[in-house]
Amino acid sequence: MTDSLPYQSAAQLAQMSTQQQDQYWMQHAISLAQRGIYTTRPNPNVGCVIVKDGQLLGEGFHPQAGQPHAEVFALNQAGSNSHGATAYVTLEPCAHYGRTPPCALALSKSGVSRVVIACLDPNPLVAGKGVEILTQAGIQVEHGVCETQAAALNRGFLKSMAEGKPYVRLKMASSLDGRTAMASGESKWITGAEARLDVQHWRAISAAVITGVDTVLADDCLLNVRDIPAYVEQAKANLVQPMRIVLDRQGRLPVTAKMLQQPDSVMVMGPFRQDLADLGVLQLPIMALADLLVFLRQNYQFFDIMVEAGATLATAFLQQNLVDELISYVAPTLLGQSARSMFAGELNHMSEQLRFNLIDVTQVGRDLRLRLIPMQETV
Amino acid sequence: MTDSLPYQSAAQLAQMSTQQQDQYWMQHAISLAQRGIYTTRPNPNVGCVIVKDGQLLGEGFHPQAGQPHAEVFALNQAGSNSHGATAYVTLEPCAHYGRTPPCALALSKSGVSRVVIACLDPNPLVAGKGVEILTQAGIQVEHGVCETQAAALNRGFLKSMAEGKPYVRLKMASSLDGRTAMASGESKWITGAEARLDVQHWRAISAAVITGVDTVLADDCLLNVRDIPAYVEQAKANLVQPMRIVLDRQGRLPVTAKMLQQPDSVMVMGPFRQDLADLGVLQLPIMALADLLVFLRQNYQFFDIMVEAGATLATAFLQQNLVDELISYVAPTLLGQSARSMFAGELNHMSEQLRFNLIDVTQVGRDLRLRLIPMQETV
Repeated sequence: MTDSLPYQSAAQLAQMSTQQQDQYWMQHAISLAQRGIYTTRPNPNVGCVIVKDGQLLGEGFHPQAGQPHAEVFALNQAGSNSHGATAYVTLEPCAHYGRTPPCALALSKSGVSRVVIACLDPNPLVAGKGVEILTQAGIQVEHGVCETQAAALNRGFLKSMAEGKPYVRLKMASSLDGRTAMASGESKWITGAEARLDVQHWRAISAAVITGVDTVLADDCLLNVRDIPAYVEQAKANLVQPMRIVLDRQGRLPVTAKMLQQPDSVMVMGPFRQDLADLGVLQLPIMALADLLVFLRQNYQFFDIMVEAGATLATAFLQQNLVDELISYVAPTLLGQSARSMFAGELNHMSEQLRFNLIDVTQVGRDLRLRLIPMQETV
Repeated sequence: MTDSLPYQSAAQLAQMSTQQQDQYWMQHAISLAQRGIYTTRPNPNVGCVIVKDGQLLGEGFHPQAGQPHAEVFALNQAGSNSHGATAYVTLEPCAHYGRTPPCALALSKSGVSRVVIACLDPNPLVAGKGVEILTQAGIQVEHGVCETQAAALNRGFLKSMAEGKPYVRLKMASSLDGRTAMASGESKWITGAEARLDVQHWRAISAAVITGVDTVLADDCLLNVRDIPAYVEQAKANLVQPMRIVLDRQGRLPVTAKMLQQPDSVMVMGPFRQDLADLGVLQLPIMALADLLVFLRQNYQFFDIMVEAGATLATAFLQQNLVDELISYVAPTLLGQSARSMFAGELNHMSEQLRFNLIDVTQVGRDLRLRLIPMQETV
């Protein structure tokens, strides 16, 4: 057993309704799944617990692509005790032979009598197949328990499977008056150290970070993950660094750019250049942003994309409705009307405004982090 | 007894330390004081409870200028039971004969053996006098319990007494990219109805609302209080409307302005005009903003001032360091770089930025309300 043992005793749990117990154990499975958030890519984050009579018999999470799935760890731990037990899984057990045999089959053979699932498999081609295997084995199956929370673990995976497009997070950082830099370009630092550290989390859950060549020219940024929250200490060793993708339609990226010191984690979209090819940098043909996103999802399994760019590229993503979530750091400071705008749109009427739903506000050090979901235009 | 009876039983309170009990009862006194926030001007908000052996014997708050002080209500309710009791008062009991006899004297005569005070009287000329009367009567006196919370009830009163200047709240409302209107001036509405209702609260606790003539010309605004939160229902009848003060250095305010339909609650700072005098509007000589604030505090006992103005006047208050608190409503929307800026400062270097400490973030409907305190320039 691990340090995440739940706090309720079997006697306390017995007082709860079945629904409450289901939620309780699913929460625990979700917290297990969370341990993999920096390391499972491109696989989803999944947690599993095996429970009988209010006793936790086995638990597991998927730690890394190539390693066993959550269900395997949990079933191994429970062993023969799983007869008649309930398995809680945050994502529908897989039904296909991959690097490991299908988990739905393993569950069927384990003797569990009930399987509770948070999210069904989002891939329309396989959705329900795992449930089918279980049901045919005579196992009672339920789904939808804590679905919203479990879905939040796998935004990119779920959207990519369902729609064939990655989930795009646009990061912005500005003053209270919506400015990113002085007119001269001076900008270090508007947000504080805590906000900049927080950015590392979002990079670390992303398969790729997209930026524009102007940002590289201005900052000579690395855009890699240098630090992640301490609670996933064990993840640091296995951290999958995001691909850095530079949009460079005119081929201006200097070969001396710092990020090219690790050329295998850089992609450049621009005209073909022999010097970049010699470095081993992967080059992408020039295409529209919307096409690029689909291309990255189809060819590289990049399910979670982060955009960290200047106002021009950020504005393009926003105005082309390519942003699923805006992560906006706001520093409590005023920079004045000659400073540079965070959003370069040229709108004439209020009816053209880009509106959002605020889903989360968190104080990060001295700054604020807002998470916003674009409203549909028809709303 | 009233609807605000505390939730702890005497037996539960007996388990607490004296310090915890003091905090518990002072919290209750603060919540009583709060009921007067819209009606006591220019008097401060004060609450009082009389307690013995964990039993609430009397409670009161100051409801309105001219009516008895909090201590009088509480002592009357407690009657002869107050012998040996503890009195909790949110502000040092007064020591002077005004419309009512000094409360420190009333407490001395009541038989209470202990008085716990949150804030001392901020007026350096009388601070400690109330405590002195109590101490000389052999009463045990303590102060500083829940001081920060109690001080928040009387920001303007405390600053005015201590420094001779009112407490200035600047209200701003902008989009996420710091814009207040489109280039054309189109701006209705950036923030939602809930945020606009929230503004009414801040107006209602203000002695005066300062605006610029351009805002009146653009919006023909009333700037009065039309609604306040329902929990102070009884306050509505006794609400003291804030004075509307229009800064109009060139004498452009039209006599047809809607706010002049109630000319007795309008002041205009500008060149003398016979037409305004004929309406009965009080006219102020033109002076610098800093001088105006002192003038309003000295001559009219305006302790809490709200500024609701366009970017030019708001920027003047900010750049002249006249703002004690910035109340910034942020709508989750982007208006673009040709829209009007909330802050009209022309800064060239990051070192000139106006920095704030964020003291509160609250979601108000679909929008955010930030409360910010300007940082000292030396920080």
